[in-house]
Amino acid sequence: VSDAGSIFAPAHENLPPIITLTTDFGGTDSYVAEMKGVLLTGCPAARIVDVTHAITPQDILSGSIVLERVLRFFPSRTIHIAVVDPGVGTNRRLIAAEIAGQILLCPDNGLITWAWKLAPAKARARELIWRPRAESGHAFSATFHGRDILAPAAAQLVGGRATLEMLTAPAPIEPVLLPIEPAPLHATAGVIIHIDHFGNAITNLSPDPQQLHSARVGRRMIPIRRTYADVPEGNPVALVGSSGLLEIAVRNGHAAKTLALHVGTRVRLS
Amino acid sequence: VSDAGSIFAPAHENLPPIITLTTDFGGTDSYVAEMKGVLLTGCPAARIVDVTHAITPQDILSGSIVLERVLRFFPSRTIHIAVVDPGVGTNRRLIAAEIAGQILLCPDNGLITWAWKLAPAKARARELIWRPRAESGHAFSATFHGRDILAPAAAQLVGGRATLEMLTAPAPIEPVLLPIEPAPLHATAGVIIHIDHFGNAITNLSPDPQQLHSARVGRRMIPIRRTYADVPEGNPVALVGSSGLLEIAVRNGHAAKTLALHVGTRVRLS
Amino acid sequence: VSDAGSIFAPAHENLPPIITLTTDFGGTDSYVAEMKGVLLTGCPAARIVDVTHAITPQDILSGSIVLERVLRFFPSRTIHIAVVDPGVGTNRRLIAAEIAGQILLCPDNGLITWAWKLAPAKARARELIWRPRAESGHAFSATFHGRDILAPAAAQLVGGRATLEMLTAPAPIEPVLLPIEPAPLHATAGVIIHIDHFGNAITNLSPDPQQLHSARVGRRMIPIRRTYADVPEGNPVALVGSSGLLEIAVRNGHAAKTLALHVGTRVRLS
Repeated sequence: VSDAGSIFAPAHENLPPIITLTTDFGGTDSYVAEMKGVLLTGCPAARIVDVTHAITPQDILSGSIVLERVLRFFPSRTIHIAVVDPGVGTNRRLIAAEIAGQILLCPDNGLITWAWKLAPAKARARELIWRPRAESGHAFSATFHGRDILAPAAAQLVGGRATLEMLTAPAPIEPVLLPIEPAPLHATAGVIIHIDHFGNAITNLSPDPQQLHSARVGRRMIPIRRTYADVPEGNPVALVGSSGLLEIAVRNGHAAKTLALHVGTRVRLS
Repeated sequence: VSDAGSIFAPAHENLPPIITLTTDFGGTDSYVAEMKGVLLTGCPAARIVDVTHAITPQDILSGSIVLERVLRFFPSRTIHIAVVDPGVGTNRRLIAAEIAGQILLCPDNGLITWAWKLAPAKARARELIWRPRAESGHAFSATFHGRDILAPAAAQLVGGRATLEMLTAPAPIEPVLLPIEPAPLHATAGVIIHIDHFGNAITNLSPDPQQLHSARVGRRMIPIRRTYADVPEGNPVALVGSSGLLEIAVRNGHAAKTLALHVGTRVRLS
Repeated sequence: VSDAGSIFAPAHENLPPIITLTTDFGGTDSYVAEMKGVLLTGCPAARIVDVTHAITPQDILSGSIVLERVLRFFPSRTIHIAVVDPGVGTNRRLIAAEIAGQILLCPDNGLITWAWKLAPAKARARELIWRPRAESGHAFSATFHGRDILAPAAAQLVGGRATLEMLTAPAPIEPVLLPIEPAPLHATAGVIIHIDHFGNAITNLSPDPQQLHSARVGRRMIPIRRTYADVPEGNPVALVGSSGLLEIAVRNGHAAKTLALHVGTRVRLS
């Protein structure tokens, strides 16, 4: 993959100072705020957007699904920091990636998977080798690279003090990817990849709903409709959700609980 | 209701770019961030304030109570987007409303109720008929109008590219309202309308605490005091809370659990 | 303690308009947003950073531990508002404190404890006696001083309309402190002071990990290592965490549940 014309090229314009945060840090501790403090200290103009800090601890797949959605909706060249990092302090790499004009900084542990697989032609990654020790006198801890490496790197970038080229090794790398695949265009067999807050079960299928009548989960046939309210209260429904993927819902209910759905459950269309 | 001099009139000044978000989307998914990305893409200067994303799923009443409070405290002509939307994708309307100088964009399903009933003289609403399809080439999904209609509309407004008059049908409408009423000024019988995070039970009563001695809930008489610490630890107390409404609390405890209170429980003053 | 050269001196420069919020208000109500509305109304340029609103209700110790971390990482003279306030409406004082160049506004109930004890030489406090009634015509409630006193005071400060000297009584005060102590430098006996979102148990010990081999909790000996991944999956490990304090963890597990750890559990090093 050539980096010509990409964000890794040296002479790019200034980045917009938007930085999003996606973590499994939860909402009860100071960890998220510590990262925000580092970002604002390094770049007082930074505009920080919380995506979520409620990824299930260590659930890289779930973080990966959320990240792919976020990358679609932000202004070009927004920086996204993602930290779900069970391998922190080991020799796992950190990566800086460009995906369809968005910049992602995260551990190289699979967090990039879903965004990478849905946009491979526009995605490239390099190893983030910059460390803040030399410049700032600050050491970095063995357990919090989000605060001690990724946030200072992002502040360097949005503050205009460094380019991604300066922070990364020059050779493109193949990032670590999880074994999860988007279903082919006309596939009729897929799998649940995510359960959302409402209990809706998102699949890896992106069918044309006009061509199909129902989704089968176990022995249950679920009608494919346009929106939740197209079935009676409490009834199951399948529809193409706001992400373009088929999802199984229960109108005003919690499909995952009601229908015993979980990540990995198989779904067939007919 | 005449719109003269209101935010619906064509020649208003620029809006402050503050946009608040009140939803039932929860904290684990990308839905909130998708809306933020749309807002920042449409208006890079937008300043987004999270109110809450933890409204109980589909609980329109609860969202309505929260919204009324929020509308009281923000700078004039702040835009508030609220999304608790079980009817998304049906023919339920979207509305743009002005309430005491604040702007509210939400589904017309009762979310506006509490704010509308507490300030009817200063409230007016129109149907939001603008759709982003024509201008942007983007389709909008049948299941996420918050992201695909309300957020782009808000970005148009705070970005100065449209006025509310341009986005709405000209005739004022009567919004859908839930069957919940503020108690009359000197009422002595009311009802619990909200249980808060601390377990305090907020009623629809706004009494003068100097005129009254106690609140009765079931067979229990609860003394009316000025603040939580006016009763011993663990004891129940009634007081006029920060919203101006009478609430039932337990000092350093959880009144709703301890006293078995819920939305709809009746309260009498004496 | 002399205030010369401190933020309490009259002729300081403008403060950066960053205001952080640390509360036990939870995520379901309007309370946090009401404070944000007051801050933005009083100072439209204010940049508000949520630290957490998920401190366990009334848990002053936990709030104190979080605050200490936050104060370390923000730009100099950031204003931090903390509200965990079971004594609201009583005659407990409010304080304005300076700790290592950061400004803290909070009830004088022990919230300042951990930051004060870790940085006593650089900490000073005064009573916050300013009340908004006279200037704004607004009354303040007996139950929400965060919204009605602390937020307006912070807006006065970051808006440049007041200095801390103008809002406080001139005499320095000794704030209320909780009975919790950082362990001395070479101490080998300590105590758990905080359980974090991952179930890691943070102690009051800050040992040199190269000098020590294991931590004893009850009858269990736990090896001291550099990072979580230095032990097999599911195994306990002790390490110096990102706060510089020794913590007990279980790799990819929840140490507090697995090992029955809680605040107050004793830990010995060897």
